[in-house]
Amino acid sequence: MQAMINTPPYTCGILTLSDKGAKGEREDTSGPLLKQLLTAQGFQVKAYQIIPDQQLLIEAFLIKWVDEKGIDLIVTTGGTGVSPSDRTPEATRQIIDLEIPGIAEAMRQASLAKTPQAIWSRGIAGIRKKSLIINLPGSERGAKENIEAVLPALAHGLYKIKGGTADCGEKREGKD
Amino acid sequence: MQAMINTPPYTCGILTLSDKGAKGEREDTSGPLLKQLLTAQGFQVKAYQIIPDQQLLIEAFLIKWVDEKGIDLIVTTGGTGVSPSDRTPEATRQIIDLEIPGIAEAMRQASLAKTPQAIWSRGIAGIRKKSLIINLPGSERGAKENIEAVLPALAHGLYKIKGGTADCGEKREGKD
Amino acid sequence: MQAMINTPPYTCGILTLSDKGAKGEREDTSGPLLKQLLTAQGFQVKAYQIIPDQQLLIEAFLIKWVDEKGIDLIVTTGGTGVSPSDRTPEATRQIIDLEIPGIAEAMRQASLAKTPQAIWSRGIAGIRKKSLIINLPGSERGAKENIEAVLPALAHGLYKIKGGTADCGEKREGKD
Repeated sequence: MQAMINTPPYTCGILTLSDKGAKGEREDTSGPLLKQLLTAQGFQVKAYQIIPDQQLLIEAFLIKWVDEKGIDLIVTTGGTGVSPSDRTPEATRQIIDLEIPGIAEAMRQASLAKTPQAIWSRGIAGIRKKSLIINLPGSERGAKENIEAVLPALAHGLYKIKGGTADCGEKREGKD
Repeated sequence: MQAMINTPPYTCGILTLSDKGAKGEREDTSGPLLKQLLTAQGFQVKAYQIIPDQQLLIEAFLIKWVDEKGIDLIVTTGGTGVSPSDRTPEATRQIIDLEIPGIAEAMRQASLAKTPQAIWSRGIAGIRKKSLIINLPGSERGAKENIEAVLPALAHGLYKIKGGTADCGEKREGKD
Repeated sequence: MQAMINTPPYTCGILTLSDKGAKGEREDTSGPLLKQLLTAQGFQVKAYQIIPDQQLLIEAFLIKWVDEKGIDLIVTTGGTGVSPSDRTPEATRQIIDLEIPGIAEAMRQASLAKTPQAIWSRGIAGIRKKSLIINLPGSERGAKENIEAVLPALAHGLYKIKGGTADCGEKREGKD
């Protein structure tokens, strides 16, 4: 259920982290799936890119998409695990102003109900300027399970992040 | 269920963060509700104040209530969300010696069972000297749901924080 | 269910933190129980020691067991609570390269289903070099509940931590 307040459709970017994907050696199935899920939720997908698992490159893309393109929501997929090459949480932590621990907790809790391997995802979420960045696992199933755990709450959160002060239409919401 | 060991009643302070509340433009319903819940659990409410959402002011109150008034438990309500003015977690992190992540996790988990919007609360909990500080959401419903998730455990934790070494009367407890 | 990929049996060390235990004034029941649980899961227990609750000593043991003995998995038991002497999480945070929040969350969530006192465990988990370190509570029951919450996932995670790239045999796993 979305907020009943009037919000513009928010823009969204999908950043897939995959060394093999960036070289064209592996098809990215998580990115297109996320595009579909986010579009269905009312987001306008404005950017989609596959880049290798390199921390500085990830940071550069996140900064560019927020600061230059003004994208409201960025979801990353890949690089959240415990392999030596997994650096997406480190890149994200480096460029956010504020971390939102409840997003990562809710996503891991949802995944944990399906598989004990959910503990390895180190993904975080946070705010840079007025934009929200969320790290998702790289697997199609993991990315889907994780984003679906928080998707219904995103529009209301973005409204608040951008300084909206009206209370949400849902009876559940008061002031935060 | 409370510990069966002999503990003095602990003192408690309630700090409401609200710009409108501080100006008398909005009635604080969360503060009085917390007073009632904490009193029912055996706490002696020694301080209650409504102040605006300003980080340095929040820090000053938390320090004063712990260092000068020696209050055992401080609960804050408000300023935990993702609005630009929400700074309670930042203020709290600044003045605690030690964070207790399990308190925030348990509170968000309880709220998440009721609403997906629970992910936005960034509240933390921690220890300053021998006192416990817990951030709660500002809405009446959110504050109630959150404190009730941890209320039965607080007396035993405070006993340990203050250096108590006897095992708790509950069969569940051994050494930590 | 374990990964179906071929992994060598991983080695394991158990470090019990207890002032009384180190002086021989209290029998360590958690250490032997963990030895049994880890052996049953296929780990080779190579080290077991009871030392007092002193931060620098804990750090020294963790470093030695990883850097000199090359132990794959270290579990600590004790010193995770809120008593003034509990310093295991601080010692661990000091010497790990990377924290894995999902392990601590899953353990506390499992404990919380049994007792509200689970919120007090401040245990963390993380990676030093290619080894995994997990903090468990000191009580026999707490240590068991916590390790059992993550035990089925450990072999696969260690395989990834050490740079393994094959996908896990479980249908559930894709790339992380």
